[in-house]
Amino acid sequence: MAKPLNIGMIGYGFMGRAHSNAYVQVPHFFDTKHTPVLKAICARDEAKAKAFAAQWGYESIETDWRKLVARKDIDAIDICVPNNLHAEIAIEAAKNGKMILCEKPLAMNAAEGRKMVDAVEKAKVANTVWYNYRRIPAVSLAKRLVDEGRLGKIFHYRAKFLQDWTIKADLPQGGQGLWRLDIAAAGAGVSGDLLAHCIDTAIWLNGRMDTVCCMTETFVKERMHNLTGKVEKVGIDDACIFFGKFANGSLANFESTRYARGHKALYTFEINGENMSLAWDLHDLHRLQVFDYRDEGKIRGWKSVHVTDNSPDHPYMDKWWVPGLAIGYDASFTHQVADFLTGLDTGKPASPTFRDALETQLILDAILDSAKSKKWVEVPKA
Amino acid sequence: MAKPLNIGMIGYGFMGRAHSNAYVQVPHFFDTKHTPVLKAICARDEAKAKAFAAQWGYESIETDWRKLVARKDIDAIDICVPNNLHAEIAIEAAKNGKMILCEKPLAMNAAEGRKMVDAVEKAKVANTVWYNYRRIPAVSLAKRLVDEGRLGKIFHYRAKFLQDWTIKADLPQGGQGLWRLDIAAAGAGVSGDLLAHCIDTAIWLNGRMDTVCCMTETFVKERMHNLTGKVEKVGIDDACIFFGKFANGSLANFESTRYARGHKALYTFEINGENMSLAWDLHDLHRLQVFDYRDEGKIRGWKSVHVTDNSPDHPYMDKWWVPGLAIGYDASFTHQVADFLTGLDTGKPASPTFRDALETQLILDAILDSAKSKKWVEVPKA
Amino acid sequence: MAKPLNIGMIGYGFMGRAHSNAYVQVPHFFDTKHTPVLKAICARDEAKAKAFAAQWGYESIETDWRKLVARKDIDAIDICVPNNLHAEIAIEAAKNGKMILCEKPLAMNAAEGRKMVDAVEKAKVANTVWYNYRRIPAVSLAKRLVDEGRLGKIFHYRAKFLQDWTIKADLPQGGQGLWRLDIAAAGAGVSGDLLAHCIDTAIWLNGRMDTVCCMTETFVKERMHNLTGKVEKVGIDDACIFFGKFANGSLANFESTRYARGHKALYTFEINGENMSLAWDLHDLHRLQVFDYRDEGKIRGWKSVHVTDNSPDHPYMDKWWVPGLAIGYDASFTHQVADFLTGLDTGKPASPTFRDALETQLILDAILDSAKSKKWVEVPKA
Amino acid sequence: MAKPLNIGMIGYGFMGRAHSNAYVQVPHFFDTKHTPVLKAICARDEAKAKAFAAQWGYESIETDWRKLVARKDIDAIDICVPNNLHAEIAIEAAKNGKMILCEKPLAMNAAEGRKMVDAVEKAKVANTVWYNYRRIPAVSLAKRLVDEGRLGKIFHYRAKFLQDWTIKADLPQGGQGLWRLDIAAAGAGVSGDLLAHCIDTAIWLNGRMDTVCCMTETFVKERMHNLTGKVEKVGIDDACIFFGKFANGSLANFESTRYARGHKALYTFEINGENMSLAWDLHDLHRLQVFDYRDEGKIRGWKSVHVTDNSPDHPYMDKWWVPGLAIGYDASFTHQVADFLTGLDTGKPASPTFRDALETQLILDAILDSAKSKKWVEVPKA
Repeated sequence: MAKPLNIGMIGYGFMGRAHSNAYVQVPHFFDTKHTPVLKAICARDEAKAKAFAAQWGYESIETDWRKLVARKDIDAIDICVPNNLHAEIAIEAAKNGKMILCEKPLAMNAAEGRKMVDAVEKAKVANTVWYNYRRIPAVSLAKRLVDEGRLGKIFHYRAKFLQDWTIKADLPQGGQGLWRLDIAAAGAGVSGDLLAHCIDTAIWLNGRMDTVCCMTETFVKERMHNLTGKVEKVGIDDACIFFGKFANGSLANFESTRYARGHKALYTFEINGENMSLAWDLHDLHRLQVFDYRDEGKIRGWKSVHVTDNSPDHPYMDKWWVPGLAIGYDASFTHQVADFLTGLDTGKPASPTFRDALETQLILDAILDSAKSKKWVEVPKA
Repeated sequence: MAKPLNIGMIGYGFMGRAHSNAYVQVPHFFDTKHTPVLKAICARDEAKAKAFAAQWGYESIETDWRKLVARKDIDAIDICVPNNLHAEIAIEAAKNGKMILCEKPLAMNAAEGRKMVDAVEKAKVANTVWYNYRRIPAVSLAKRLVDEGRLGKIFHYRAKFLQDWTIKADLPQGGQGLWRLDIAAAGAGVSGDLLAHCIDTAIWLNGRMDTVCCMTETFVKERMHNLTGKVEKVGIDDACIFFGKFANGSLANFESTRYARGHKALYTFEINGENMSLAWDLHDLHRLQVFDYRDEGKIRGWKSVHVTDNSPDHPYMDKWWVPGLAIGYDASFTHQVADFLTGLDTGKPASPTFRDALETQLILDAILDSAKSKKWVEVPKA
Repeated sequence: MAKPLNIGMIGYGFMGRAHSNAYVQVPHFFDTKHTPVLKAICARDEAKAKAFAAQWGYESIETDWRKLVARKDIDAIDICVPNNLHAEIAIEAAKNGKMILCEKPLAMNAAEGRKMVDAVEKAKVANTVWYNYRRIPAVSLAKRLVDEGRLGKIFHYRAKFLQDWTIKADLPQGGQGLWRLDIAAAGAGVSGDLLAHCIDTAIWLNGRMDTVCCMTETFVKERMHNLTGKVEKVGIDDACIFFGKFANGSLANFESTRYARGHKALYTFEINGENMSLAWDLHDLHRLQVFDYRDEGKIRGWKSVHVTDNSPDHPYMDKWWVPGLAIGYDASFTHQVADFLTGLDTGKPASPTFRDALETQLILDAILDSAKSKKWVEVPKA
Repeated sequence: MAKPLNIGMIGYGFMGRAHSNAYVQVPHFFDTKHTPVLKAICARDEAKAKAFAAQWGYESIETDWRKLVARKDIDAIDICVPNNLHAEIAIEAAKNGKMILCEKPLAMNAAEGRKMVDAVEKAKVANTVWYNYRRIPAVSLAKRLVDEGRLGKIFHYRAKFLQDWTIKADLPQGGQGLWRLDIAAAGAGVSGDLLAHCIDTAIWLNGRMDTVCCMTETFVKERMHNLTGKVEKVGIDDACIFFGKFANGSLANFESTRYARGHKALYTFEINGENMSLAWDLHDLHRLQVFDYRDEGKIRGWKSVHVTDNSPDHPYMDKWWVPGLAIGYDASFTHQVADFLTGLDTGKPASPTFRDALETQLILDAILDSAKSKKWVEVPKA
């Protein structure tokens, strides 16, 4: 019989929905010894909590997260609230012996992140951060190819995350659905929101980064704040570009912006190795572009691998449909839950743990330091 | 409060899973007055029925479909078994006053199909056929553009459905998972399995077809039959090509095969109108290619519309995530359930009904007749 | 020293320019023993002949093609006039012992084509037809891959040639630049103009075609004729679709139209073999799409081969620039001249000869017969 | 009658061929009052000069460039030799009153470049630098769209030039065909060779750049030098990444490398404006990607504009073939000659002049300074 894993979710926004969906879906597609149970949803607004519970089948609600993390019937806390609340909740949950699944980025900064790592490691509770893009099948396939040593010496790693939704100057900062524009709630702009994903994938695929040099820009200097009703200075980075060097000697070139007209969520990466190069694009998430230099010259070219084979060749896809048929963005969360549960079963924690995610946080701190100081900055060891 | 709609599902294969997933997902994303309840799963093999029920949360099992369709606590029968069983089950279910959601193609042939139409219409039960591709957001968007009259006079409609999974000559025909190769169970080969989808979309977008001329081919003439253990003549069409004329004067060019090396499920269509052309491809299902002749000449070109805006602009997408993020093939079934439920609520049945699907069946009969007679054939009126 | 090959060109339109360019270019890029000399241009309008001669460097002009083909100082006649003049000129040129380079299609029909073949074979003069697409490097690479036996058994060959320039109903038929719409001058519509190319490439790559079944359509029934000033019935096929069977058992699906909004010259073909599939597209002419089933499953996908390596791997490209840099459509003519000259040097005639092109003509006759009779038609042997 | 423009070409390598081709082609396709005459080719190796003259039709040869620039019968000097010779030759040519068409980059550095600008401006001779990519039709179309103000406020300009031909560690530096790897001959690595193109296009489209911050890398530290036969330290940059700010407030992100496996000459740029974004790619040079925010939301997407219309809509294309048919990389040089000649006719010099190219040189100096100092650097005014 499956062992229940009682989930207590905090937050009911975009990510609250994505995680809830994953908990519901995982037993339909994956065989794991643990099965998630939607035990409680927590939100300050009781009516909203109730509505969310009804829609997703949560058994109960809470309006105070401190009560939730103290409940005996909860095994794991899922943190889906703005970044400025991650640390406090996670540390308290760890004290209560709860496992933690925390939205990315881990924290407002590395200092907070370290405390969170200390808390979960001291409490010896399972923990993970929702860097879900690792588990898009095409991205997981890239990881396998790298791990098999197919790329040879790596020369370049490039990533971008381009959006265009904040170009309008009359878009408010802060308030419902807009906390990502509010420096107090988000801690940073596109760096923490978008580059965090790019960095997480990069260090997973290509190892740690040593030094960085960065520039940021805030195109719209002032915006009305929905919570105060006043026009206030914008504190976040609207765009962030950095380069640097990985420990393996390869060069980094990263860029993120919310001012790239025509792109909604264009997360792309490319890694160039001596023998193989790989490229991926979130807008066409099922395709991994592979250039294999060992192919015969006459017919060498970029292969567009449609990662949909329901065979072990293509990560996770044997659990879904038949070849040629796509799964959605949301499946990446389902895969993360499946791997988290397998980690519980096997005792080998699924990545990224809080400790793994701290490394991303250290790079985020370093790039923002560099943007401020206009100097190269070394990334401290995690 | 949501009204329960008690589902009795017959079959537990690929489509059984896809439909079950849709029933589970619909209340999480759509607001409908009715909510599906997974009441019973029916399969001849009791152990398999139990396992499926456990995985998906069906409340009960049956091993005899006649018992299922007679149960008082079942509102709707979902038919997910091979084609040769559709008619008998559907007619019996209709007699029992059950709504019916039937896998495609509707029937083994038009004669069977007519009986099924008569049965559901006589019984006045809600009915639909799972031509799910209508509800891929990009395809639904194509329908809207056509309905808005943007294309002007239509000249051409082209569709292909290319696969490559039966090239190996030692693949058996028939038996578990292979009934699609068995003429007795499937009724036809790629025509009924794949072209049925292409035809359904085509008549939805472009209206009825008047005359057709077809060729078929069976590349592998004999295969072992898993159920008998003997090498037997292959009765299905491995490839099927036809052209013809739509009632609106436009030309049809359709092709399907399971011998197109390199293609897994490459369903593509293109419609060329005087003022606009549209093209779509299942392998990249979120993109609709749009050529708008009314665009300024200097920057006229095929637009790759990534149909992921969470606004009413893009069908169904306001129910899911945020712009740029893909949903999967499986969502097309969820959308069909949502529309079916809305049809119950509003009294306006969601398409395609059995009667709509009969039109596809008539075209399928006509093309197979043409392939046999080597003559042009007129498509009878539905 | 290079041996001069004195060219007498008849016609100064689009093809007159393309061929002249090829003659000029060939010695700059290719080492051949013969070198073309632009000896004479022939056109009925003296002023236009003079202007063309000045622009391209022809040494002399003629206004009567009979005089040109009789001139002692002319080695080769290049026929760039409407189709209805090909046979007469070619036969007369052959009688005068001239080599002939004739625009495609060879003739108005196969009967004419046979006479032309007889004439050049009797006169033992070098001859070729300008089916230039064979010599786009990506297409030539496809031929090599086929000849190396990489594809295995062939199942399908598909080709389309889509344009949109005659949608406007007030476009005249006939007259300057519009003779392709005039049945008297062109002999046929899109079949002879566009499908002729598709068929030539197909039989080169995939061998002879045995049987065909075709439909044609004339969307605009009447147009003003520029030469008469009257509205007259349109005699050409505006669209032409056919299927059929190649001698190797593979299935043909061909389509051509000038009513496919959004496509200017979209000549595409795809060939599906047991072990490899190939696809090509004139709008992106430097790319050959290759699916190699022998690739490892994990990273199997369509390769986009950018056929620009300046190595012997990529046909003709060692004569041009450096890897990554494209050559134009016009280079296909230059390559054909280079191969024609090499044929003179080596005694092995470059394809397609008149006899090769007659095979295309026989298929064109067969499809038009089929469209008329609404029956399958066997293609006679050449 | 056309006025002859007598060309004296120095150098016979890749660029010598590309320029010669342009001089030959221009009168066949463009109507200009001046017509180039291939008067003399200069190379130290007499045999090679003779062979080149024979192949391209140069009337005479020289083996000493000083003699060439002094010849009375020469109107214009074309400099196609390694970068370290540009300044000396150009200054001497200017003193002799010759027009100058100089290969890019203008000079070894900005100091040299300034002297060259002074020389040609003092001598009042027509001058241009062969930044040929401006005249790829798709790139010229981008310029028109920018000039028409369609993009609105610009936020981002990104460019990359990726190659992979120097990954092999045993490739020598220097010597025939390899001078681009020799710091003494080239002055710099990928910055001067490749980023120079990216920068030239960028400042043409997006205006001047104010500040930059750069990193460079030399992956292979030592290579044998073909001229000395010794293994020597490599002085060039193998890879170069920089970011910075344009005067219009937009952000720059540029990268170039010869270590990006799978890319031959992947020059790409993208410009993101408030109302429109544009992207281009040298490997598919006829396509301009256009995202027009003013398009209706429902069908908004990136348009793939195939810039081949033979109408004034598409720059230069009315001079070539018919819609849909590509021209090659080499045509960009033909266009530059045509515009240079038109500049002579009209008195409005075609860009880029030496002065325009000096701006690129200043940026190149600034980025290399920044890479060395690891600091942000301001770009001096030209």
